[in-house]
Amino acid sequence: MDCNQKANLRYLFEPQSVAIIGASAQQGKSGFNIVRNLKEWGFKGKIFPVNPNNNEILGLKTYPRVDAITEEVETAIIATPAPTVPQVMKECVRKGVKGAIIISSGFSEEGQQQLETEVVNIAKEGAIRLIGPNTTGIINTSLNFTSAFGPLQVVPQGKIAFIAQTGQFAGVMTDHIISSLHVGLSKVVGLGNKSDVDEADVLDYLRDDVETKVIAMYLEGVKDGRRFLTSAKKATKVKPVLLFKGGTTEAGSKAAISHTASLAGREEIFDAACRQAGIIRTQTFDELAELALAFSLLPLPKGNNVGILSSTGAVCVMLADLACKAGLQIAPLSPRTAMTLRKITPEWHNLSNPVDFWAAVEKVGLSKGYTIAIEALRSDGNIDSVIVHCGVLKGRGAQLFQVRGEEKPTVFSISGTKESRDLLAKQLISEGFPAYSSFHTAVRAISTITWYANYSQPQNSL
Amino acid sequence: MDCNQKANLRYLFEPQSVAIIGASAQQGKSGFNIVRNLKEWGFKGKIFPVNPNNNEILGLKTYPRVDAITEEVETAIIATPAPTVPQVMKECVRKGVKGAIIISSGFSEEGQQQLETEVVNIAKEGAIRLIGPNTTGIINTSLNFTSAFGPLQVVPQGKIAFIAQTGQFAGVMTDHIISSLHVGLSKVVGLGNKSDVDEADVLDYLRDDVETKVIAMYLEGVKDGRRFLTSAKKATKVKPVLLFKGGTTEAGSKAAISHTASLAGREEIFDAACRQAGIIRTQTFDELAELALAFSLLPLPKGNNVGILSSTGAVCVMLADLACKAGLQIAPLSPRTAMTLRKITPEWHNLSNPVDFWAAVEKVGLSKGYTIAIEALRSDGNIDSVIVHCGVLKGRGAQLFQVRGEEKPTVFSISGTKESRDLLAKQLISEGFPAYSSFHTAVRAISTITWYANYSQPQNSL
Repeated sequence: MDCNQKANLRYLFEPQSVAIIGASAQQGKSGFNIVRNLKEWGFKGKIFPVNPNNNEILGLKTYPRVDAITEEVETAIIATPAPTVPQVMKECVRKGVKGAIIISSGFSEEGQQQLETEVVNIAKEGAIRLIGPNTTGIINTSLNFTSAFGPLQVVPQGKIAFIAQTGQFAGVMTDHIISSLHVGLSKVVGLGNKSDVDEADVLDYLRDDVETKVIAMYLEGVKDGRRFLTSAKKATKVKPVLLFKGGTTEAGSKAAISHTASLAGREEIFDAACRQAGIIRTQTFDELAELALAFSLLPLPKGNNVGILSSTGAVCVMLADLACKAGLQIAPLSPRTAMTLRKITPEWHNLSNPVDFWAAVEKVGLSKGYTIAIEALRSDGNIDSVIVHCGVLKGRGAQLFQVRGEEKPTVFSISGTKESRDLLAKQLISEGFPAYSSFHTAVRAISTITWYANYSQPQNSL
Repeated sequence: MDCNQKANLRYLFEPQSVAIIGASAQQGKSGFNIVRNLKEWGFKGKIFPVNPNNNEILGLKTYPRVDAITEEVETAIIATPAPTVPQVMKECVRKGVKGAIIISSGFSEEGQQQLETEVVNIAKEGAIRLIGPNTTGIINTSLNFTSAFGPLQVVPQGKIAFIAQTGQFAGVMTDHIISSLHVGLSKVVGLGNKSDVDEADVLDYLRDDVETKVIAMYLEGVKDGRRFLTSAKKATKVKPVLLFKGGTTEAGSKAAISHTASLAGREEIFDAACRQAGIIRTQTFDELAELALAFSLLPLPKGNNVGILSSTGAVCVMLADLACKAGLQIAPLSPRTAMTLRKITPEWHNLSNPVDFWAAVEKVGLSKGYTIAIEALRSDGNIDSVIVHCGVLKGRGAQLFQVRGEEKPTVFSISGTKESRDLLAKQLISEGFPAYSSFHTAVRAISTITWYANYSQPQNSL
């Protein structure tokens, strides 16, 4: 990758001006949704709809061809039928467009390899970088930019970037993640057919993106293994890279089943290579987003000693089991913490880490008890990270305690009715603390950021 | 276990008359909450509050001692301070009470082993079966019965029974499960200190309980390993038994960590024994409830051929990966299904299992497409179970399709905004179809019921 290529990716993610070729005045059409999304999101650049049959779409002056636009056009979103795309691309070259996002499908994914090659060659000759075809393309929340072709609610700004193999990621799955985790995103890219820009290019770009703190990927395969791993290795030195990998498209078919052995073999090699490159692989798609949330909010721990707090003994046991299995150390409480907790705990109650907390809650109340105990654990020199479990009763979702103490990675695990959990999780996340419904996920979040702290800052000698 | 013991458990789960010893008129107290819950739930038996300082609690005539009640009392819920419990138990024996649920804490869990033994001996001599001490006790939704001492919303009736080691299960965790999964329960028992009734006794009771279709357990240890496995083996022949096991209470302490090796060794033996007894162990607490939902709603599959349907190619790949790894077969579609799907799918689109469905949705619309395809898969003789993935857009939670076709285990995996997912999941579950947010859980549900079908009906030769 030369400097020029890198510079070109900027036009795809951060366009100052965009032409929508195949824009439509007809509600429900992709070409309508793209214009509508850009307007509703409040895109910060200029919008030029292109359609020979309309003078105006959604109040915007509309042009018959891209090269009929008099102002500069940095990027084109192309949503015309596949057979027309080569001609459209030629017009883009003539206009001096620098980046193209091809939404249209009907290329290599439907056996039309030659048509795709023709488009790529035109782009190369004209020095246009290309995303797609067959994709929803890009979201950049800092510019309120999206090329999504379905009606998409505004995605809040955050520090997580998603790279997805599937073209349909910027849509239902984006909605899924932001509503589940109460979190915003920095960038999203659906790679589609990867005829030009691929996962390695995007990793290089996102590595240097100041708005992105963690990169999460859903991939089904990589275009160039060596280049991917080189880019990943560079990226993981700077920020965490998470990967959930689906099989190849054959995986689901009978053919793939009969080839399982060979697939599994390649998978082992790929997995070892990922580990060497510092990529964090997740077991499920949900985990990809859940761990990204933790990395986007938390500082890295200075060691692997965890403090655990719950008002339920059984949850202390479950969290301790999970933490041990994940390689975390359950540190002894410092004398100062033990003294602080003793003041709010009945004499007969045994105090250790994990802190089984119900006796203190019974004595001083939920609000005061949690506030004091969380502060004590976060300020304990023996402890590098904290897991707090709370059970919330119906209608008691509002946060009843303060999270004080030293800056230290702290996650919450919440049990109770869905409504109460959501309320409390939303509030905690807005204050910078990941909150999950599952004990397992809370522990996995702490163990993973602890692993990454060790990988990226080995001098800390975890 | 003799017949008498078994008969006695009936009094604990299905009392016709209950005395609450330590009932309180003071809001917020445990003894108040127990009476309040029974009244609010509409308990179908008689309620006798016992407290020497009140004549009436929540409009109910209140007695100074249990043996001052003139009518029959089958069961006592005891919530007085620990040191008073032996005397209270003697009064229960005098009264002819048959079952006691001891809510009070301050026994062996706080080092007061002798006090606990004293209580157990009185119970034994008086032929009283005992749950606890140190527990929330029992829920039986068919009688609107609960001994929970925190304010507990009414638990809807369902076919899942929970056995929990922790005393605090009937409360926050019950709320958690029913609101997460939109599901009801049949029975819940928090075992507490297990001074008398333990997991084996309850397994025997629930095995024959016609209201219970699946038994889910959270245990930290078993009182008598041999008896537990014998009871489990009998139970799993009749209905599925799920187990999530926490460590011992030492697991979280420094001591447990230094003993990890020996614990791990015993864990392996325990795990092998569980497998032999047909117990299904889960990896997380959430999975315990998620799988119980599937067993409570679905018929068992006749074989391990699964049909998969999604409107997103990437999800087809993920589901197929997961299904293969879980040992399910992705069956070829029957010619009839292929023909049915061909009618609603464009010519160029490749049709196989998993059915990547977006082209059909684009052609005939979401509602018609899904209805036809789900019916085709459910009626396909090659297919024993069906996994359907749907992406729902904001405000489109209402079910847009019909689930028709033959009676065949069918689960749904739903992506989209939390609100839309909840709406659709609730509707599907009310129609008898488990619905999950996670791809992983949907596949795990089908693979687990398939495993159990093979275990419990080996003649089907899966």
